[in-house]
Amino acid sequence: MGITTSSQSPKLLFRQLFETESSTYTYLLADVSHPEKPALLVDPVDKTVDRDLSLVKDLGLKLIYAINTHVHADHVTGTGLIKTKSPGVKSIISKASNAKADLFVEAGDKIRFGDLFLEVRATPGHTVGCVTYVTGDGPNQAHPRMAFTGDALLIRGCGRTDFQGGSSEQLYKSVHSQIFTLPKDTLLYPAHDYKGFTVTTVEEEMLYNPRLAKDEETFKNIMKNLNLQYPKMIDVAVPANMNQAIEIRWEADI
Amino acid sequence: MGITTSSQSPKLLFRQLFETESSTYTYLLADVSHPEKPALLVDPVDKTVDRDLSLVKDLGLKLIYAINTHVHADHVTGTGLIKTKSPGVKSIISKASNAKADLFVEAGDKIRFGDLFLEVRATPGHTVGCVTYVTGDGPNQAHPRMAFTGDALLIRGCGRTDFQGGSSEQLYKSVHSQIFTLPKDTLLYPAHDYKGFTVTTVEEEMLYNPRLAKDEETFKNIMKNLNLQYPKMIDVAVPANMNQAIEIRWEADI
Ligand SMILES: [Fe+2]
Ligand SMILES: [Fe+2]
Repeated sequence: MGITTSSQSPKLLFRQLFETESSTYTYLLADVSHPEKPALLVDPVDKTVDRDLSLVKDLGLKLIYAINTHVHADHVTGTGLIKTKSPGVKSIISKASNAKADLFVEAGDKIRFGDLFLEVRATPGHTVGCVTYVTGDGPNQAHPRMAFTGDALLIRGCGRTDFQGGSSEQLYKSVHSQIFTLPKDTLLYPAHDYKGFTVTTVEEEMLYNPRLAKDEETFKNIMKNLNLQYPKMIDVAVPANMNQAIEIRWEADI
Repeated sequence: MGITTSSQSPKLLFRQLFETESSTYTYLLADVSHPEKPALLVDPVDKTVDRDLSLVKDLGLKLIYAINTHVHADHVTGTGLIKTKSPGVKSIISKASNAKADLFVEAGDKIRFGDLFLEVRATPGHTVGCVTYVTGDGPNQAHPRMAFTGDALLIRGCGRTDFQGGSSEQLYKSVHSQIFTLPKDTLLYPAHDYKGFTVTTVEEEMLYNPRLAKDEETFKNIMKNLNLQYPKMIDVAVPANMNQAIEIRWEADI
């Protein structure tokens, strides 16, 4: 395979961060060529907010957005705490999630930070409001592109589909139409990994994902027969994450 | 700071892998432009060998070297197991470590894989035989450069200096003369991280490393007063890691 596994833009600063208890990845992205070095965090966790804000400070960045891929059931989002500690940061989640946030996004929206942006793709199926954030396509944007898939696609896996409006049929369609159609060298960064992997590519998952590389019927059968336990954090995490922001405002123009 | 945090070469495939029990990072590097796609692993762990070899296979790589930065005291190296499961792979460690391996390296040696190479820098102090592997300098090599620092330099920290021939004075000199003299945007990848960080840069550590950014006397005092516990795996790991390879051969020409 003709893949490389690092992405580069003269403007992009990128950091992957891990929270061990829930095995969650948080991602920091910033436009360091812009005078203000505007930055955003994808899927911050409450327990690692101090670490993340300290890194933002060390790197001289200005955090403007704290973004979630979906309403997490396994950890409490760091968004609320970030907004308390760093007023001015705006929380973002999909409109379809029905969660609270400062800003709501839907398919096709662009989240701009400096000259860089993330494009929003609707990838429901793990939850009804899951979205995938994809770095922009263009000369100054990251190359290869990078996609933050949340739990829609995990490395050699995917999120469960039996809670929060999940649907295996919808997840299959989401991944095949919104993620597997990206360029093959697109770097995929999930919300979790439980085996110590940090990144994969569209090409790799199309070939080797043990669930999603199969046909739709096989996938639906796999998901139906997972026999997973009731998510241990769900009754704490979901209500907290539905109310993640302190203010509720609608702003379409982001 | 004008830093970016991803490295790129048209030839380099790079993957960072994590072993949760010992919080160890293993690194996979390969020249994917070369017909054989020769690859090497830095600091593999025995418990994750199957994961690593399965990834090597999925990516169509030919693993040629399994390399250690030093004789680890906190986990058993994967080198022995890799050689059993994948005959033909050669183990590499520093000559100064006095450990067994197929190939021994010292300062200035180059470890070549396809058109890419790692340069060896002696960075004793955590152990007597610690080395740092730095990606080559040149048009097809990774840019920014990448350094695999083992436990000589950790993100906002460093390895202890009270066992295995350690010396705080030597570690200070090693880091300041061999790592902090690299270009400021050099990406530093340690053998461990305990807070979920994945990477740092020379510039960041020169500014913010709470130990090594200090003057030498302060550093030596910090290290003398750490009051760390006896390393829990040391009596198992060190003898195992000293004997990591099945064959012992000297080959200077690598
Ligand atoms: Fe989830
Ligand atoms: Fe060590």
